[in-house]
Amino acid sequence: SVGLKRAQVTHGIREVILCKDATGKIGLRAKAVSCGVFVQLVTKNSPAALAGIRFGDQILQIDGETVAGYSMEKTHKIFNNCGVNGIRIVIRDRPFERTVTLHKSSDGFVGFQFKEGQIISIVKESSAARNGLLTDHHLLEIDGQNVVGLKDKEITKLIQDAGNVVTVTVMPSLLFGHIMKEMAFSLVKSSMDHGVRDF
Amino acid sequence: SVGLKRAQVTHGIREVILCKDATGKIGLRAKAVSCGVFVQLVTKNSPAALAGIRFGDQILQIDGETVAGYSMEKTHKIFNNCGVNGIRIVIRDRPFERTVTLHKSSDGFVGFQFKEGQIISIVKESSAARNGLLTDHHLLEIDGQNVVGLKDKEITKLIQDAGNVVTVTVMPSLLFGHIMKEMAFSLVKSSMDHGVRDF
Repeated sequence: SVGLKRAQVTHGIREVILCKDATGKIGLRAKAVSCGVFVQLVTKNSPAALAGIRFGDQILQIDGETVAGYSMEKTHKIFNNCGVNGIRIVIRDRPFERTVTLHKSSDGFVGFQFKEGQIISIVKESSAARNGLLTDHHLLEIDGQNVVGLKDKEITKLIQDAGNVVTVTVMPSLLFGHIMKEMAFSLVKSSMDHGVRDF
Repeated sequence: SVGLKRAQVTHGIREVILCKDATGKIGLRAKAVSCGVFVQLVTKNSPAALAGIRFGDQILQIDGETVAGYSMEKTHKIFNNCGVNGIRIVIRDRPFERTVTLHKSSDGFVGFQFKEGQIISIVKESSAARNGLLTDHHLLEIDGQNVVGLKDKEITKLIQDAGNVVTVTVMPSLLFGHIMKEMAFSLVKSSMDHGVRDF
């Protein structure tokens, strides 16, 4: 399915080349976690969003500079100081995430309940139970579409509108908490890219 | 490389068929975490070890029974009560783990320090830094060989003896702690399978 393909987490490394937008921004916020630098926010329609950078991606290098151990501020400074064109970023594809593919039952349910984006229970004998979906995890994508910061109602609608096969991308809540720390939820709601893009 | 192939984490689902050994055991201990059942210990030379079940695998089904939400005791009871032959277990391949492939520098270092199996620092400009290896993670395998419960000295020797390309399998320490909880370290040291097997 297209959703499955879009949602695929490879954990592999790739290079993207970006240009700044007219206001000099590339449109991502970074967060330092465990000596790694992670993408905390990708702004709608920004160069970062258009290049396919996603929430949870790990930034390994910017213009040849390895950023392991760098703080958020030091990383943002590199972005501020680099040129407008041809910014080369090496990325590890979402190391804390994985996908689980679920099949809807005849009454349209995949078998889990969630609250504020966090999976809180698994329905007995459901597709979620059979596939080993876990509680204490946050929903990050539905069929490859970012849902971080969406309302539960909006996420439910995305699941309902999906086909019989739905791929959910999840991250352990403990790690999600580390990446989201110190970011205002209002910022996530107003700016986070929730678009669907195929690469 | 052989190590890379052996270490590959697919996060996929597979079925294994086991028989109990002469003492009626299959040789694994399970642990309930977040409504999932995880493999906490695989005993050396046991049917479970020979079938390729590994630390961190998630047990989804035993003889057709979905175990989502089951306790450790309830899961062990199913194993105790099932027949001697043809036990069918459906497994999700190590959902909390991932691999990072490192290249040794000319002086033989991959670039991280660890203590009691936990990665505690990343060396600047090393292969570990360039590949985004993280602190707050536990080492689970070196080139696909289980190192849970080995002494740091033994793990260091495995890394030294490996080729120029070394694949390390890691798990966030927070999740590792949940799986290892309530298990005596002496049990891990005396019984854990540390063999190398190709499937």
